[in-house]
Amino acid sequence: MSPSRLSINHYSIRQWDLFQLVKGCRNAGITSIGLWRDKVNAVGLETARQLVHEANIKVSSLCRGGFFPYSSEQERTKTLADNQHAVDEAAALGAPLLVLVCGGIAAAGLEQSRQMVFEGIAALTPYAQARGVRLGIEPLHPMFTANRSVISTLAQATDLANHFPQDTVGVVIDAYHVWWDPNLYQEINRAGGRIFAFHVSDWLALPPDFLNGRGLMGDGCIEFSKLAAAVTQTGYKDPIEVEIFNEQLWSLPGDEALALIQKRFAQFIH
Amino acid sequence: MSPSRLSINHYSIRQWDLFQLVKGCRNAGITSIGLWRDKVNAVGLETARQLVHEANIKVSSLCRGGFFPYSSEQERTKTLADNQHAVDEAAALGAPLLVLVCGGIAAAGLEQSRQMVFEGIAALTPYAQARGVRLGIEPLHPMFTANRSVISTLAQATDLANHFPQDTVGVVIDAYHVWWDPNLYQEINRAGGRIFAFHVSDWLALPPDFLNGRGLMGDGCIEFSKLAAAVTQTGYKDPIEVEIFNEQLWSLPGDEALALIQKRFAQFIH
Repeated sequence: MSPSRLSINHYSIRQWDLFQLVKGCRNAGITSIGLWRDKVNAVGLETARQLVHEANIKVSSLCRGGFFPYSSEQERTKTLADNQHAVDEAAALGAPLLVLVCGGIAAAGLEQSRQMVFEGIAALTPYAQARGVRLGIEPLHPMFTANRSVISTLAQATDLANHFPQDTVGVVIDAYHVWWDPNLYQEINRAGGRIFAFHVSDWLALPPDFLNGRGLMGDGCIEFSKLAAAVTQTGYKDPIEVEIFNEQLWSLPGDEALALIQKRFAQFIH
Repeated sequence: MSPSRLSINHYSIRQWDLFQLVKGCRNAGITSIGLWRDKVNAVGLETARQLVHEANIKVSSLCRGGFFPYSSEQERTKTLADNQHAVDEAAALGAPLLVLVCGGIAAAGLEQSRQMVFEGIAALTPYAQARGVRLGIEPLHPMFTANRSVISTLAQATDLANHFPQDTVGVVIDAYHVWWDPNLYQEINRAGGRIFAFHVSDWLALPPDFLNGRGLMGDGCIEFSKLAAAVTQTGYKDPIEVEIFNEQLWSLPGDEALALIQKRFAQFIH
C-alpha cells in the first residue's frame, strides 16, 4: 500500500496533544490524520482548524458521534444536539466523515436500543447531508454490545446504512472489531460503495486488555493482506487509519510510536 | 421453569470437589449436574461414576472435548485420541453429551483452523455415535475466537452440525456467548432439533473480567425470559445448566453459592 494511504488516528499516539501530533506527522511525511473531539476541544476548534490547514494535513475522520439509545426524552434531545455539534466540528475541520459509535443498551432493552440507533441516525442524516459530512456506522466487537454499541456486526451496520442516502450514511470497517466474523468477506463485498473508512490494529492472541490492549499490525492474528485486498477490491480508495488503543504504545515517546506504526503499516498493509 | 430443569455445572461452584458437589446438590434437591473432566479425574472416573449413581443424580453433560486445530500431524492424532477418551468418560458417567469447545487459531490461519474443526468432528462422530454419546458444538463469544473457539456464532455451529447425523451432533446454546447476536432468535429457531444443551449466566454491563466475570442471572443485561422461551419453543426439554465463571461466587461457601443460583434460576428462568 502506498504510504500516502496511511492516516494516523490521534488515539494511537494519545500521549501527544494536537500540536505535537500535527508537527510529528508533518515531520514524518504523513499527510492524513484521524481526530478525536476531546483532543480537538483541548486546543480549541478554531486553533485545530488552523493547525491542520497550515500543515497541509487532511483530516480523514472525526471520532466520534453516536451513543443514540436513551432513557428519557431529555437525553434523546441532548444526544441529537451533541451529534449535530459533532457534525459542525467535522465540517469546520474539513473532515469528510464523522465516525458513529452507536451506543450500548438503554433501559428499554436490546431490541428497542437498536431501534433508537436507527431513529437517531434518521434524525441526524439530513443535518449531516446539508453540511457535506458523511456518517460512518462502526460496528463494534460483540464484547462491547452492552456498553458501547448495539451494532455488533458488519452485516447489521450495512443493513442499517442501506436505509439512508448512499452519499451520506455508510460503514466503518475496523479490523479489530470485525476480523472474527465468519461472514466477513461476503459482508465486505456487500458493503462495497458504503465503506467510508477502514481502520487497522491487530488482535493479540491473548489481549492483555480488551479495550486498551490492541496490537500493532503483525503482532496478532489478523490476516491483513487478505482483509486489505477485500476492502480495496470494493473500490475503497480513501485513507487507511491506524487506530491502536495500546498502553505500551502510549508509554513511548510519540516519535517512536509513530515510527513503529509507519514501519508496520509498510510491512503489513498491502 | 420447573426447578427440576436446573442442572448445576460444576464450574459454577468450582470451590467444591465432586464429593462436595454431589452431596450439596442432593441436600438441595438438585437432580442434575454438569461435570468437568479435570474435576472428575481428580477423584477418579470410577469413583465419580459411583458417586452420581448412588446419589441418583443425572449428569447432563461432560465438559469438554474439542480444541481441534493443530499445528502438526502428531498433535492432530493426540487430539483425536483425547477426544475419544472424553467420549469414553462421558459414556462411563452416563452423560448423554460431550460439550465441544472447538479450539482457537492454529498456525495455518483462521479459515484452515475452521476446516480442521470440521475434520476433527467428522473423525470423532462415528466413535461417539457407537457409544451413544452426543457431541454439542458450543459457539463461544467472538472475544475467544483467537484462543478458544473459531466457531463464534450459533449460525456457524448449526451449519457445522448439519453436516452430521442429527442424533449425534448438535449445538450448545450458552446465553453468555450468544446473547449479543442480532440474528439470535432466527438462529435458535433454525437450530431447533439440534439444540443439545442450554447454558445460562448473565453478561454484566461492565464485566470485571471477560473470562471469569460472568454474572448471576438478573445481574446483567441478558433477557432470559425471551431467550428461554425461544429455546423452549423449539421443543428443547433437557436440563438447563447454570454455568457461571465468577470469582466472587467461587469465594463463597459452596452451599451459599448453590442457594444463590437456585434462587436466581427460579426468579429469572421461565
